[in-house]
Amino acid sequence: MTDARYDVLGIGNAIFDVLVKTDEAFLSRHGMTKGGMALIDEPRARAIYGDMGPATEMSGGSAANTIVGLASFGARAAYVGKVKADQIGGLYAHDIRAAGVTFDTTPASDGPATGCSYILVTGDGERTMNTYLGAAQDLTPDDIDPAQIAASRIVYLEGYLWDPKSAKDAFVKASDIAHEAGRQVALTLSDSFCVDRYRDEFLELMRKGTVDLVFANEAELRSLYETSDFDTALKQLRVDAKLGVVTRSEKGCVVASSEGVIAVPAFPVAQVTDTTGAGDLFAAGFLFGLVRGAGYENAGRLGGLAAAEVIQHIGARPQVSLKELAQQNGLSV
Amino acid sequence: MTDARYDVLGIGNAIFDVLVKTDEAFLSRHGMTKGGMALIDEPRARAIYGDMGPATEMSGGSAANTIVGLASFGARAAYVGKVKADQIGGLYAHDIRAAGVTFDTTPASDGPATGCSYILVTGDGERTMNTYLGAAQDLTPDDIDPAQIAASRIVYLEGYLWDPKSAKDAFVKASDIAHEAGRQVALTLSDSFCVDRYRDEFLELMRKGTVDLVFANEAELRSLYETSDFDTALKQLRVDAKLGVVTRSEKGCVVASSEGVIAVPAFPVAQVTDTTGAGDLFAAGFLFGLVRGAGYENAGRLGGLAAAEVIQHIGARPQVSLKELAQQNGLSV
Repeated sequence: MTDARYDVLGIGNAIFDVLVKTDEAFLSRHGMTKGGMALIDEPRARAIYGDMGPATEMSGGSAANTIVGLASFGARAAYVGKVKADQIGGLYAHDIRAAGVTFDTTPASDGPATGCSYILVTGDGERTMNTYLGAAQDLTPDDIDPAQIAASRIVYLEGYLWDPKSAKDAFVKASDIAHEAGRQVALTLSDSFCVDRYRDEFLELMRKGTVDLVFANEAELRSLYETSDFDTALKQLRVDAKLGVVTRSEKGCVVASSEGVIAVPAFPVAQVTDTTGAGDLFAAGFLFGLVRGAGYENAGRLGGLAAAEVIQHIGARPQVSLKELAQQNGLSV
Repeated sequence: MTDARYDVLGIGNAIFDVLVKTDEAFLSRHGMTKGGMALIDEPRARAIYGDMGPATEMSGGSAANTIVGLASFGARAAYVGKVKADQIGGLYAHDIRAAGVTFDTTPASDGPATGCSYILVTGDGERTMNTYLGAAQDLTPDDIDPAQIAASRIVYLEGYLWDPKSAKDAFVKASDIAHEAGRQVALTLSDSFCVDRYRDEFLELMRKGTVDLVFANEAELRSLYETSDFDTALKQLRVDAKLGVVTRSEKGCVVASSEGVIAVPAFPVAQVTDTTGAGDLFAAGFLFGLVRGAGYENAGRLGGLAAAEVIQHIGARPQVSLKELAQQNGLSV
């Protein structure tokens, strides 16, 4: 195995976030399921946006948020995702590169606009996402550079990639190349509704070894195994995944491996402003701990630290240097 | 005088804000004057943006921020400003309309993109703006609807309008129509460097009565009268303007009218996060007090309250209902 050029390479739907604070009545009026991610088409995007208050915009996308978090910790990070060569695509590419991430995916020159997620943040800090995939639908296996994948210690993939039509082929291609090069492949289950759409395929990815490490939150894990009992689901996860990391909000996380199961407490948070990106940033911290060989417990703590930072402000990207934050909290690795 | 459809109509450069936290070294590296607004061309915009960290975007523009603030207080407000019919222009139009403001200016179908300001916020909360005017350069007298101007109790204009080539003609046209309809015209001097560029013209606007009410901060007032002595400048202002309102940051404001000079203290602020929009929101509160007949002292307090809200977060638009904030602070008018 050659030296790795990147610690982690992420592949995901490149999505620009349009965030607004709103109330529960807005969610009801538009028939939204609070806390979830719903895919929307252009007419619905227009209807939702037309009814939304003044917004704040910033780059997002689940795996992209994780990769930006990794760069903020000081990891060498790369991202693969499809935007269009439009104004918003330009903002997107700027932001991820300015965060120190290698981003070489060719933008689409025609077809739908850069994807957007209309994110409604209610008073309790919970976020409800409505995603128009746009150009992200056009990610194909051609966007996967074998040399870049082979040069990445961990390839990190989001379950949301199952939504666009050819991204899953890109996903499997990347996984095959990574494994051939002796690298590891991680998957986040993304969202319980996403798990519901692709349960059998996700289980097959795990059981066939297409992915080695699985990130899930409690709702996603319960959906995956169609059980309301956490322990039952966790037991199953230990059978199906080499390494499983389950986040439990304020209860912290659980790391399940062949060595056993360990629980890591969450990082205390004074006030939750916006949960957008909580899972993404947890994954960033955990993966950073992993590539630095910090052990599962410290990796879990780093995940909790990054998640705590991101839920205390609007938006899914860190607003401080996570490297410095880790140092200030005695978590340097 | 017929009943007014709008309390305040603002005319200004419609600018989309691209905000980033940075350090003093960035300002030095790019030869920026801290705290000012510099006009930049496309190549310089590319150079600055290319070197900037990941940003947060939201709608801005000085007079537009004021008008959005007025709507947030509960005033009937309208805005005239030029964007292009591009993606960012679409976000801009959405945000101002979603704030409850009437915005009917036809977007440019060709020519430069919607204007952007690259706003660098340093650790002390000070903002340094670099503005690419873009489509805002194409505001002309044709964009002024005489009926709409005549139906507005106060027409509020920004000094920045002197920068685009035909906006000053739009400005003078609007002022003439307003006065003919028995309405009042207010001007903000915008920026001390802007005053330096157009000193003689601004003084003529005041002395000829093209504007009735003038907003300035201390630096702008000193620049206008080319003196370092505040009292000398204030004395001059009282000669030249029917009503002059001078903001002095943490020292509050001074209202100078034929009735005399009154000082109003600032609203206490725990921590200054980003001063972008401080003057704009002060003007919003003051104008709201004025149209509600609250008296100069209460108007000054409302201005201070709105300025205090906006400097405690990133971005130049209020994040809470200013109407509710005023109620909570016993300042209902």
